[in-house]
Amino acid sequence: MAGLNHFSTAPVLENGAQNDFSGGLQNIMKGAQNGVTNGAPSMTSSDKQKGDVIDTNPQNASVEQGYQFLNRLIPLMVKDALRDGTSVHNKVVEFKHPEDLMKTLDIQLRDEPADNDQLIQACRQIITYSVKTGHPHFFNQLYGGMDLYGVAGSWLTEALNTSTYTFEVAPVFTLMEKVVLGEMLNLVEFPDGDAIFCPGGSMSNMYALNLARFRCFPDIKRTGTAGLPVMCVFTSDKAHYSISKGAALLGIGVDNVIKVKTDPMGRMIPAALDQAISAAKAEGRVPIMTNATAGTTVLGSYDPLDEIADVCTKHSLWLHVDGAWGGAVLLSDKLKGKMKGIERCDSLTWNPHKMMGAPLQSSAFFTKHKTLLSECHSAKAKYLFQQDKFYDVSYDTGDKSVQCGRKVDVLKLWVMWKAKGSKQFALEIENIFHCAQYLTRKLKSTEGYRLVLEEPECTNVCFWYIPPSLRGKTETTEWWNAVSKVAPEIKKRMVEQGTMLVGYQPDGDRVNFFRMVVANTAATLADMDFVASEIQRLGKDL
Amino acid sequence: MAGLNHFSTAPVLENGAQNDFSGGLQNIMKGAQNGVTNGAPSMTSSDKQKGDVIDTNPQNASVEQGYQFLNRLIPLMVKDALRDGTSVHNKVVEFKHPEDLMKTLDIQLRDEPADNDQLIQACRQIITYSVKTGHPHFFNQLYGGMDLYGVAGSWLTEALNTSTYTFEVAPVFTLMEKVVLGEMLNLVEFPDGDAIFCPGGSMSNMYALNLARFRCFPDIKRTGTAGLPVMCVFTSDKAHYSISKGAALLGIGVDNVIKVKTDPMGRMIPAALDQAISAAKAEGRVPIMTNATAGTTVLGSYDPLDEIADVCTKHSLWLHVDGAWGGAVLLSDKLKGKMKGIERCDSLTWNPHKMMGAPLQSSAFFTKHKTLLSECHSAKAKYLFQQDKFYDVSYDTGDKSVQCGRKVDVLKLWVMWKAKGSKQFALEIENIFHCAQYLTRKLKSTEGYRLVLEEPECTNVCFWYIPPSLRGKTETTEWWNAVSKVAPEIKKRMVEQGTMLVGYQPDGDRVNFFRMVVANTAATLADMDFVASEIQRLGKDL
Repeated sequence: MAGLNHFSTAPVLENGAQNDFSGGLQNIMKGAQNGVTNGAPSMTSSDKQKGDVIDTNPQNASVEQGYQFLNRLIPLMVKDALRDGTSVHNKVVEFKHPEDLMKTLDIQLRDEPADNDQLIQACRQIITYSVKTGHPHFFNQLYGGMDLYGVAGSWLTEALNTSTYTFEVAPVFTLMEKVVLGEMLNLVEFPDGDAIFCPGGSMSNMYALNLARFRCFPDIKRTGTAGLPVMCVFTSDKAHYSISKGAALLGIGVDNVIKVKTDPMGRMIPAALDQAISAAKAEGRVPIMTNATAGTTVLGSYDPLDEIADVCTKHSLWLHVDGAWGGAVLLSDKLKGKMKGIERCDSLTWNPHKMMGAPLQSSAFFTKHKTLLSECHSAKAKYLFQQDKFYDVSYDTGDKSVQCGRKVDVLKLWVMWKAKGSKQFALEIENIFHCAQYLTRKLKSTEGYRLVLEEPECTNVCFWYIPPSLRGKTETTEWWNAVSKVAPEIKKRMVEQGTMLVGYQPDGDRVNFFRMVVANTAATLADMDFVASEIQRLGKDL
Repeated sequence: MAGLNHFSTAPVLENGAQNDFSGGLQNIMKGAQNGVTNGAPSMTSSDKQKGDVIDTNPQNASVEQGYQFLNRLIPLMVKDALRDGTSVHNKVVEFKHPEDLMKTLDIQLRDEPADNDQLIQACRQIITYSVKTGHPHFFNQLYGGMDLYGVAGSWLTEALNTSTYTFEVAPVFTLMEKVVLGEMLNLVEFPDGDAIFCPGGSMSNMYALNLARFRCFPDIKRTGTAGLPVMCVFTSDKAHYSISKGAALLGIGVDNVIKVKTDPMGRMIPAALDQAISAAKAEGRVPIMTNATAGTTVLGSYDPLDEIADVCTKHSLWLHVDGAWGGAVLLSDKLKGKMKGIERCDSLTWNPHKMMGAPLQSSAFFTKHKTLLSECHSAKAKYLFQQDKFYDVSYDTGDKSVQCGRKVDVLKLWVMWKAKGSKQFALEIENIFHCAQYLTRKLKSTEGYRLVLEEPECTNVCFWYIPPSLRGKTETTEWWNAVSKVAPEIKKRMVEQGTMLVGYQPDGDRVNFFRMVVANTAATLADMDFVASEIQRLGKDL
């Protein structure tokens, strides 16, 4: 285990390498001057004598400056972005309106280069005016927190800049995907399944749509949809909009995304699904998929997978689970019951960049049908997936994607997982559920708060704040209209003061309410107390 | 300008901040111990007295270790990945077969945590066995090189971990996209156009397909493709496979991607396109788009945009340009003539992560139709794109994407562009064209090499190597069969020896040949000399 002795004056290399680079980072940075970097032994003298050469390496002169820049940026990032950005004593956001921010920042591009001083100043400003998503009081999105092992893994990813299509150029990451996705497939209980990282949960959900359609109509890949009947997809009226975006992109059409009713807890009603499927069939539409949600975007509801699987089995329908947000409960024996029945489903979206705290983006798509990703997506490009390579080309997994180049999304998650171990990962997920339950109890017992759901299933805690001036009144349409203006006004104040970020939205008949999300696995009960008191402070005079 | 005095013993902060953190990185790292990081002022004493709390912050204990880990990883990355990884004296790849590599690496996940020593050792191995895509002799893909400003920008991106959907959580990056994409739109000469970053060129090309289809059939978004006629898309027989993947995903079908003939230089023949469009119409298929390529994947050919635009105008057909690889010539007044007519096209894919050397991924989609991205893709999710926000919500650009969360791809490119200036960027693009032309001349005059194209248009230099044993023979089918085995064998040797990476593939009637790509803007003529001599060395006994 690394001890404090590693905090020497300079961040030096470990002992093994220290003989060569005893000066630490300083000398490593200086290495650029030795002319061995970036193809530096440039032109041969014979080339120079030919008289036909231009300055063929215009970048070389800037390599030295580049290391100097990194040498200045690293401590700035560590201090301003990582350390100060996650300090509860600092602001979550230093807000300026777009036009004002544009005037403040020097972001225009020019013909001439900026020097390192100017760039460092610019980076300092970029950090200042960026939202601190790792701040303890950032609760605005379904991500948050700042895992330093995750950051480390993402930095190493960038230092090794490659694409995950072939073992040839991504040998380590190809194997790492196999291990990490294999571990997750075990948790999902798709032992013979397949999986791939996608650029975000919306794309993962689109993969589900495409595979489900392909299973119904395998000729579609070759001949397209023309001549085929109207297809349709079922999802709850609380599900994420990516199902509709996917249906539009795939040519299914958003009108053919049939919204199934939910119960007061925001969960899809299996009987309503059954009826909706039968009704669609009666209209001549061909159902291709049901999308259930494990952790809806606003309320955090978990659709009852087992009952929905019964309905889908009855209708021989692909059952996809959008667990982009709530899928991480599969890590915890205490919590995974929320997804009871997952092993009966056909596919799953699960974003480690949400509840597991991995840096953006990390989203994985899982299916229990081992060969389908490949059959549905492969194009067998000869320039990339040569079959006469000298190694086992089954490790070239890129053709399972609809992308060609694919960002390495696995390393940051792997470093985190390795550093924590699976047990600790489970504890961290349990921690944010505990925080959310604590906040729920607290708001229930605090004047002025009204919960949208009495017992939230996930770590979304949704509530209205009723300011003193509106308390004890008859709840007429005008009254609700007044309530609907409270959250936007409090949001404006919290942004302007930079003390916290929490989202709000209307939902169906419910007027604007706060959606407080505990996504930061380092959240504390004190952070929850702060939310309750801060909204009171910001809104008490409304 | 930063001078050498910035190489102090520790990478310290600049003067402005030095009063607070005079110990440099060491103290910044130690900040974690002060308990002000990651929501650290954890439970209030009153919470602790309630007796209902578990350890709600399991991560806190590891924050200290996290900084220690970063403190050790940073110099390792700078030395092993950046400096050594780009040194011409080191290997491009330390190859092991998949099964052997799996045994060598400790990548299995476990219940218990790994300590920092184990993790540093693992990261050292990850670097060792990863392909050095920044190495001067990495010519394997349409990307390569290691721009330190790009790396810096990508690290800062990760330190500020956010998503580009709203100004609310990505204020700086929303504006930065506006500036960078605006600059690129000017180069494309779409002055009133729109643009967005996508996760790779394949996705950008799919955006083109979707927009082109939507312009023909705007109801498709709502009602889908059912009942509509067979649609078709035109692209050259040398174009990238993403057009086919996109056609499959969108339900158009790969059989409806009509491959237009190319001339011996690999360029689409406009008259052949005209005929193909007429023939498709005669068959009752509805053309929705032509895809022209600016820099094909293998040969680097530039389709003649002006003549193709004439044909598309005649048929009122959307003209998309896949300039993922070759679009960067628009930066150079000397080279942009290769894309003459681009201003007449409807859309363009251009990947700065290819020829501009930005870290992966950076791909942008451009269209001259200002409102179409929004009309085609928007879903108006109420929880994210609230219309009653207190700032100008026209800066919330995320709904133009088919994604929801979207990685910040702009910052790394912006830092590079700012550091170089537009003039230098143009010079670097010109440099790689110069290198490719130099190599072409060299191979022409060197025994054993035969060029696929006598005058390549881009920086792809494609050639066969004919080993001495095959020279001067009659070129029968058997002879070509023997030649087809040369490139895979030489590739095997170069990978095993780790001296260089160059791709190969067959193409139509042409048997396996090398596709040497100059993508690294720091390439030198000496690197080109090396390619010629190294392939001879590896293959002379074949």
